[in-house]
Amino acid sequence: MNITVFFGSSRNNGNSELLAKEVVKGFSYEEIRLQNLNIVPIEDKRHDLNGFSIQDDDYDFIIHQILKSDVLIFSTPIYWYSMSGTMKVMIDRFSQAIRDERFPNFKEHLQHVKVIVLAVGGDEPRIKGLPMIQQFQYIFDFLGMSFDQYLIAEGNRPGDVLLDEKAMNESKLLNKWLHQLETSM
Amino acid sequence: MNITVFFGSSRNNGNSELLAKEVVKGFSYEEIRLQNLNIVPIEDKRHDLNGFSIQDDDYDFIIHQILKSDVLIFSTPIYWYSMSGTMKVMIDRFSQAIRDERFPNFKEHLQHVKVIVLAVGGDEPRIKGLPMIQQFQYIFDFLGMSFDQYLIAEGNRPGDVLLDEKAMNESKLLNKWLHQLETSM
Amino acid sequence: MNITVFFGSSRNNGNSELLAKEVVKGFSYEEIRLQNLNIVPIEDKRHDLNGFSIQDDDYDFIIHQILKSDVLIFSTPIYWYSMSGTMKVMIDRFSQAIRDERFPNFKEHLQHVKVIVLAVGGDEPRIKGLPMIQQFQYIFDFLGMSFDQYLIAEGNRPGDVLLDEKAMNESKLLNKWLHQLETSM
Amino acid sequence: MNITVFFGSSRNNGNSELLAKEVVKGFSYEEIRLQNLNIVPIEDKRHDLNGFSIQDDDYDFIIHQILKSDVLIFSTPIYWYSMSGTMKVMIDRFSQAIRDERFPNFKEHLQHVKVIVLAVGGDEPRIKGLPMIQQFQYIFDFLGMSFDQYLIAEGNRPGDVLLDEKAMNESKLLNKWLHQLETSM
Repeated sequence: MNITVFFGSSRNNGNSELLAKEVVKGFSYEEIRLQNLNIVPIEDKRHDLNGFSIQDDDYDFIIHQILKSDVLIFSTPIYWYSMSGTMKVMIDRFSQAIRDERFPNFKEHLQHVKVIVLAVGGDEPRIKGLPMIQQFQYIFDFLGMSFDQYLIAEGNRPGDVLLDEKAMNESKLLNKWLHQLETSM
Repeated sequence: MNITVFFGSSRNNGNSELLAKEVVKGFSYEEIRLQNLNIVPIEDKRHDLNGFSIQDDDYDFIIHQILKSDVLIFSTPIYWYSMSGTMKVMIDRFSQAIRDERFPNFKEHLQHVKVIVLAVGGDEPRIKGLPMIQQFQYIFDFLGMSFDQYLIAEGNRPGDVLLDEKAMNESKLLNKWLHQLETSM
Repeated sequence: MNITVFFGSSRNNGNSELLAKEVVKGFSYEEIRLQNLNIVPIEDKRHDLNGFSIQDDDYDFIIHQILKSDVLIFSTPIYWYSMSGTMKVMIDRFSQAIRDERFPNFKEHLQHVKVIVLAVGGDEPRIKGLPMIQQFQYIFDFLGMSFDQYLIAEGNRPGDVLLDEKAMNESKLLNKWLHQLETSM
Repeated sequence: MNITVFFGSSRNNGNSELLAKEVVKGFSYEEIRLQNLNIVPIEDKRHDLNGFSIQDDDYDFIIHQILKSDVLIFSTPIYWYSMSGTMKVMIDRFSQAIRDERFPNFKEHLQHVKVIVLAVGGDEPRIKGLPMIQQFQYIFDFLGMSFDQYLIAEGNRPGDVLLDEKAMNESKLLNKWLHQLETSM
């Protein structure tokens, strides 16, 4: 079972990363640190005669990685009540990726992938993070993907999330869920 | 009355821009096309001993522009049910800006600014754009700003928004609201 | 074109009623004042062997009225950030109505009906009323209905809504929309 | 520590009741089965010269019970993506209760009470129940109450919730939280 974790944080070892590592403990996985990649913001050419231009950046790598994955984990700090800008820039490019003729199976593949969203915020995240969860739902719905699991945790200072007992508990359940998923494959 | 419009689109003359131009018709205003600026994603150093590093990009220009403004208009296409990644990257940097000692009045200034959010989307935006509006509310609340007006319009193909009669109507009301605001200043 | 307006308010001539009357100006319509009807809260018997018991209250009247209608208008004050309890009690009974063998065409009929939601609140309704709009969307989605129009207005003291220029404007547009609908039938 | 549980369900031993009993296991508590009480829908007289009329129903009992409580648990099935109509009718009457001169300490008391919301639904409750959570947040904010904990569980057929491993796990955490709360009092 191939797991890919997208880290949306600007920091290494940030709370959302620590949380993700609890969730995937014992599994091998690929990590994609979005902050280290060069991803150009989408240029909306859905309505151009010639369609989108191929971008010379790291997005193809992301597409290839998704195509190899059975499970995608989106792990983001909650910046201003939503996913990080870095992750949003990556999401926006889906509009291009699903129309990219070099990857004809991309959209179809997404529909068989399992998805987890992990988010850590400092300002009442379990309430004020809910609109973000609704947006992820709309995103996955549009793409025909299932939205299997999400976990919102609280953390402000580095390492805080490990003290969020509820989140630690839920991360164990998610870990168990991954094990069950693996068995069923 | 100084008005600044932030354009979050990746295109010139996109629907969200057309909508904004209806709203500010007859007013002079500054426009900031985020797609043309170099804005580095936030590096979260709130908990670093030395705090944030000054970035050598175009963000100072944005801060200066905000400091001169009485009205801020955030005009964004709805990409994947939220503001564009480009605009989100800009918003994320507020975390740094409000802590930037070179701009001690920035946060105070924000609290006297009037705010309009304009958004145009293609997939049931008046429903599926609502989580984004809630997020803007949380953002402005956090910053002590008022959230005066928002307008969600529908548009998919270029120019569509001009056919959204309801939006055109609301844009006239917003234009009138700006006139009343000017009178009261 | 048969229009039915459900009034969820506890008062006659409340703001949500005034708003509805602006919207249907010039049309004949049936009004259902929920406060005057006897509607028993749902008793959830979806999983009972014998199913739901027929209730001896005014709900059949509501079903008959819906079956005659081309347009349904739900007009409610925003009480505690949602529709009034009286209206919610009525909505809850849909679970029974769609399973009621005496009305085999009820669910099918709903799917051809046009729907408007009107809501008036006093505490930032255009923001804090949004979760209610999302709930209506889920309700109509579940029932296979389209959610054609909604209008949120501000009003606290009796008559206030008539001073909400934006709402008055939108109500004119809704009125026009009803005229177009009538023409197309 | 006095705990009061409001049951919003129309059934005894429904899923939301089973969930609540897991949460309060080992504690003594008062239960209020709203379906068994006579609660008249609010008649909005905030703007009447004479104010609200005292209602001859069971609401005073609810107020007295709240005044004795340290912890309030609102346990509701998710009917049509929100709390049950029966519970909403009860909530609506808060508008009257906080103005009732016979209970001058009511609003003040609420601000010292701990609150848990428990909800069980059958149609993607962890996503589609989120607007309801946002509404509870607005309600508690308005009243100056803290919104301490919520738990959304999945269940459709009677007893289902006990099979929702995630919810059972969270209910144990809530139980533990109640124990800690008791110790701190």
